[in-house]
Amino acid sequence: MVVNISPIDREAMDRAAKRQAQLAKPPGSLGKLEDISIRLAGITGQVCNELNTTRMIAFCADNGVVEEGVSCTPVEVTKSQSINMTRRKTGMSTLAKYYGCSVDVVDVGILTDTGCPDIINEKIRYGTTNIATGPAMTKEEAERAIAVGIRMAEKAKAEGVDVIGVGEMGIGNTTTSAAVLSVLTGASVEEVTGRGGGLLDDAFRHKKEVIQTAIERNRPDSTDPIDVLAKVGGLDIAAMTGAFLGAAANRLPAVVDGYISIVAALCACRINPLVKDYLFLSHASFEVGYRVAEKELGLSACLLLDMRLGEGSGCPIMFEIMKAACAVMCQMATFEEAAINDDYLEEIREADAFSVEEK
Amino acid sequence: MVVNISPIDREAMDRAAKRQAQLAKPPGSLGKLEDISIRLAGITGQVCNELNTTRMIAFCADNGVVEEGVSCTPVEVTKSQSINMTRRKTGMSTLAKYYGCSVDVVDVGILTDTGCPDIINEKIRYGTTNIATGPAMTKEEAERAIAVGIRMAEKAKAEGVDVIGVGEMGIGNTTTSAAVLSVLTGASVEEVTGRGGGLLDDAFRHKKEVIQTAIERNRPDSTDPIDVLAKVGGLDIAAMTGAFLGAAANRLPAVVDGYISIVAALCACRINPLVKDYLFLSHASFEVGYRVAEKELGLSACLLLDMRLGEGSGCPIMFEIMKAACAVMCQMATFEEAAINDDYLEEIREADAFSVEEK
Repeated sequence: MVVNISPIDREAMDRAAKRQAQLAKPPGSLGKLEDISIRLAGITGQVCNELNTTRMIAFCADNGVVEEGVSCTPVEVTKSQSINMTRRKTGMSTLAKYYGCSVDVVDVGILTDTGCPDIINEKIRYGTTNIATGPAMTKEEAERAIAVGIRMAEKAKAEGVDVIGVGEMGIGNTTTSAAVLSVLTGASVEEVTGRGGGLLDDAFRHKKEVIQTAIERNRPDSTDPIDVLAKVGGLDIAAMTGAFLGAAANRLPAVVDGYISIVAALCACRINPLVKDYLFLSHASFEVGYRVAEKELGLSACLLLDMRLGEGSGCPIMFEIMKAACAVMCQMATFEEAAINDDYLEEIREADAFSVEEK
Repeated sequence: MVVNISPIDREAMDRAAKRQAQLAKPPGSLGKLEDISIRLAGITGQVCNELNTTRMIAFCADNGVVEEGVSCTPVEVTKSQSINMTRRKTGMSTLAKYYGCSVDVVDVGILTDTGCPDIINEKIRYGTTNIATGPAMTKEEAERAIAVGIRMAEKAKAEGVDVIGVGEMGIGNTTTSAAVLSVLTGASVEEVTGRGGGLLDDAFRHKKEVIQTAIERNRPDSTDPIDVLAKVGGLDIAAMTGAFLGAAANRLPAVVDGYISIVAALCACRINPLVKDYLFLSHASFEVGYRVAEKELGLSACLLLDMRLGEGSGCPIMFEIMKAACAVMCQMATFEEAAINDDYLEEIREADAFSVEEK
């Protein structure tokens, strides 16, 4: 799979870093806000940016592996919560509504037809195969799911969106994510597997066994991320991988949500390492594997909210942080502008006297 | 010093926790967003809250200890950046402007008169004494500075503010904060002292010696936070301490910024432990001592931005997170509301057909 991605603009980043150094503050004292603003400059090619139009894209699909009892949430919830996303009633979509982000809900593989006209129907198939018994899907299906994600990012760009957030709805997808992450990084199943929606001890132990079985049975090629996605991943993760690729191909910054999203981001970076510079991590998920993926990516989350809801719920908050970074870059005073002289004070005293006289 | 603070409303928190449990998500999956919304209920007494009116309060003062060379920033910057805050040109005030927070800039002890009519003049004295040579101020002066902070919180409440953020401007105040924190917690000077605005090795070593000297010379009573503030603190930290006390006394949630702010928050909690339930930590400062104070307080920051600017710069971003927490509490669907039935789908299909006909 070839996706045409350009490196970010180092010259624009140099100009942005130079401006950051001129702002009236100790160098580096705004930490990640500085880094974010500089990287945004590299993406857009201009020092000052505004993220006025934000969009969440949620890819929804069912995962056959739920028949192993790896989730404490019923499989029907994938469909009902996908519909609820279009009503802005779920965690992520409530936040998106609050902050004024549009939401594209995309069915790439829900088990049944949703019957909901507000969901974008890009269904590849009705759910995946149980990875404990065989490959989740064919490689061709994985590629088609990735292509859906790419198209959704293209659509966002065409519609004037300034930044996308990539989320999901797919019961069972912490299991598939853990399998993909373990294969891609060589980390043990133990290191990458968490309790998802809230498994108790026995079910949690069973979930890890299922993941181990899935990897052993399907033997994915760890050097081929699409093979890994097809064999032990899911349609949701594959489409999300595509969205990150598509964002980078369209010079669109993309925000990574929690565990599922960061695993998809890692898949995208394995397909094309240039993707990394277009990614911004929102929150550090409570799911244990998140840190493994974060370290592997070499990026660092901005929010520490102990969240583990998924959906993309960290992204709308991260958009606000990125907007803050943009505001600092372009509205803070430089050292030159911050110098206070008597003329200025005279001026504001006069303005003050004037406004008093007016009353 | 007696400040009349009521405990937060446990009954309202129970109702809020009950609602969180009814929202369509795995229990606890929104992590700190849930905790924030529940604690806000305890503060206001109602389950659903909106933080429409937000305010930053920045307390500005000079610290005599700068004559020891503990800061790489010239002392005049306290005054110039205080004035720049009123112009919304500094880091914090740029963010405040961007997010629509009002900013009260309060002079509690700048070395000279500011001549700026937009700064609230509550000057206790012109800078403090160098703590390496003697107590920063008298106990009576510390109490007066605390009283200023309390009044500023009262003013915010009276003006309809829903949440305050507590910041500062005072060159040299990472030195005084480290001294106060070391005395209050028993942590070594090494553990609580960072490079502030960016000290190089020799100056950093010297800063730690100065703090050690200040503690040994003034021998503050670690069980008496006001004595500690008076002897090795500063007018900025003392007034901030007052603002946290005043917020709690007025049932106003208060956001803690970085290092200086969390040390003041700790002083306030030592004066009255009920303050803690009114506090929300914004970002984990890059300053090493922050973690010591965070652990001591038993609270946990929501933002991981590697910032070390001070001023209150983390608070405007934290207000957005708190607003997100409120949106989740009151706009997300409950499990009951999230149940999707055929009637609903029929309804949206009809609505859709209707809107097509309309065109």
